Amino acid sequence: MRERELIEKTGRALSGRHTAAREVRVGIGDDAAVFRPTAGHETLLTCDWFLEGTHFLREKHPATSVGWKCLARAVSDIAAMGGVPRCFLLSLALPASHTGRWVGEFLDGLRRASRKFQCLLAGGDTTRCDEILINVTVFGEVQTGRAVLRSGARPGDLIYVTGRLGEAELGLQLLKRSRQSASSRDRYMKKHLYPEPRLALGHWLVKKQLASAMMDLSDGLSSDLSRLCAASGVGARLEMAKIPVRQTMHSNTKDLAAALQLALHGGDDYELLFTVPRKRANSLPRSFRGLPLTQIGIVTADKKIILVNENGREQQLDPGGWDPFRARRLTAGLRPYS
Amino acid sequence: MRERELIEKTGRALSGRHTAAREVRVGIGDDAAVFRPTAGHETLLTCDWFLEGTHFLREKHPATSVGWKCLARAVSDIAAMGGVPRCFLLSLALPASHTGRWVGEFLDGLRRASRKFQCLLAGGDTTRCDEILINVTVFGEVQTGRAVLRSGARPGDLIYVTGRLGEAELGLQLLKRSRQSASSRDRYMKKHLYPEPRLALGHWLVKKQLASAMMDLSDGLSSDLSRLCAASGVGARLEMAKIPVRQTMHSNTKDLAAALQLALHGGDDYELLFTVPRKRANSLPRSFRGLPLTQIGIVTADKKIILVNENGREQQLDPGGWDPFRARRLTAGLRPYS
Repeated sequence: MRERELIEKTGRALSGRHTAAREVRVGIGDDAAVFRPTAGHETLLTCDWFLEGTHFLREKHPATSVGWKCLARAVSDIAAMGGVPRCFLLSLALPASHTGRWVGEFLDGLRRASRKFQCLLAGGDTTRCDEILINVTVFGEVQTGRAVLRSGARPGDLIYVTGRLGEAELGLQLLKRSRQSASSRDRYMKKHLYPEPRLALGHWLVKKQLASAMMDLSDGLSSDLSRLCAASGVGARLEMAKIPVRQTMHSNTKDLAAALQLALHGGDDYELLFTVPRKRANSLPRSFRGLPLTQIGIVTADKKIILVNENGREQQLDPGGWDPFRARRLTAGLRPYS
Repeated sequence: MRERELIEKTGRALSGRHTAAREVRVGIGDDAAVFRPTAGHETLLTCDWFLEGTHFLREKHPATSVGWKCLARAVSDIAAMGGVPRCFLLSLALPASHTGRWVGEFLDGLRRASRKFQCLLAGGDTTRCDEILINVTVFGEVQTGRAVLRSGARPGDLIYVTGRLGEAELGLQLLKRSRQSASSRDRYMKKHLYPEPRLALGHWLVKKQLASAMMDLSDGLSSDLSRLCAASGVGARLEMAKIPVRQTMHSNTKDLAAALQLALHGGDDYELLFTVPRKRANSLPRSFRGLPLTQIGIVTADKKIILVNENGREQQLDPGGWDPFRARRLTAGLRPYS
């Protein structure tokens, strides 16, 4: 196979009526894509690595999941700004052995994600490599001046998260332990393999101008909340009992502690973390189209992040989530507050 | 070093007064960059891999060249549409061993390119990897409807190239053979290590509406011209004697033949290939700000690409340039026309 054939295969797989959209005037096959921005809007730009060995395992992750997730991850950043995705660029490096069936299934997952998120393939770059390397750039739009940044949280604002945290990390653990190929019937594996960016909620929060700050949870609550707090120059006080952990069959102490560790430090949830000024909080429903919105704490002027347990005991919460330049330490991150 | 520190190092290296430009309202450090498009313009999007082993050699290519060239390559795609670059996203995966001096020199080369091309760092993604992986997305703009596509060439249009072809490929050969580290004092090595996208010319051609089709020469004239012809549904007739090969000291037949092979199939020139309707050709100067513009042939209705030598003998020219999914074959590509 030559590069041209791979590009054509990609173009065919991702084409359809939806690629004739007016926004992408020139797509695959020219030096650059030509995109017509919407009047009164700003453009949002984000890119994400999705690398074999770092972000997925060739032998464990189905190719359809790799295709879906590489786009979902980047689209989640657009959701986190309150924007609407428009188009994406796909950079794909593959071993020659993967230009047949594997890439077909990969493109199938990517096409499903592209349709679901209404985000069109506009171009990209392909090359050969011994490892599977993916980089996705997503282009989104948001009404001028309305993007929700990480830096807008103010002391007194309430802190919210969507969904249940730590489920995707548990799914990864199950996937690693499983001897068979991954099953998307398992709730946790499915959340790990086929995450759903919270686009509708992000967009609704912008429309209602409810959120003062927002980001997506990709590396774990402890790491991501510390980033939001640093950007806003604030701290946070979280109530342990309010954190929406996965539902456990038996609510024994050990199970609950494990679920809390996953919720605090587990990655890949792609839920939204956002803050709402206290007097606007009444306008926020408890759930949005079936997605639970849970208040887990409050923004503080003191720049520490404090976790309060049911007995009122305080601990300082340090970032314990995913950092590619450190070893992954899922059980660390909690130390007594001094 | 943690990921945050690498991001901060990158931000510091690329910052300066020019990052306060109004276009990039939110840069590094949020979920996505926020870019304000210029009224009356379309956005251009392009991304390029720059991978160790495929696009550069860790032991041979200076880190400053890697930094310069990863941006220059992508910016060249914007030049090829006649656009103006605005900002870029940097995706960088590095071994932990390269987060010190190497990345410092890399960022130095990248900063110089960013200033030269007036293209600002707006965001990106970093991770750890055993190999050095780079992906750059560039955002440019062009007046609405004015982008020069590959598909606009019509039979009778004249075919032009800028500069001299094959010099960068020769530079790569010299670099591979050299025992010492690369010298940017050598003309050919310099062209390979620090290419200069033809932004000013591309933009001028759009302003004067002279070019009917355009692309940049990244994979070699034989491969790239065949792409332009395919996109336009045309063929081409090239005059061998007109192709601007590198200047040779002794014009013996063997030297000239080698120079021609480099010009036809050598990659990485980042010169522009464009077509001009015959009646507009009088408005095109012989050189633009010191850069030679050479007419090398004519667009034909017959879809073959024919090379005519000084004796009028015709050969069909097949794509013999760079294709990552084939072995590189610098001496192939020419076969008698039948």
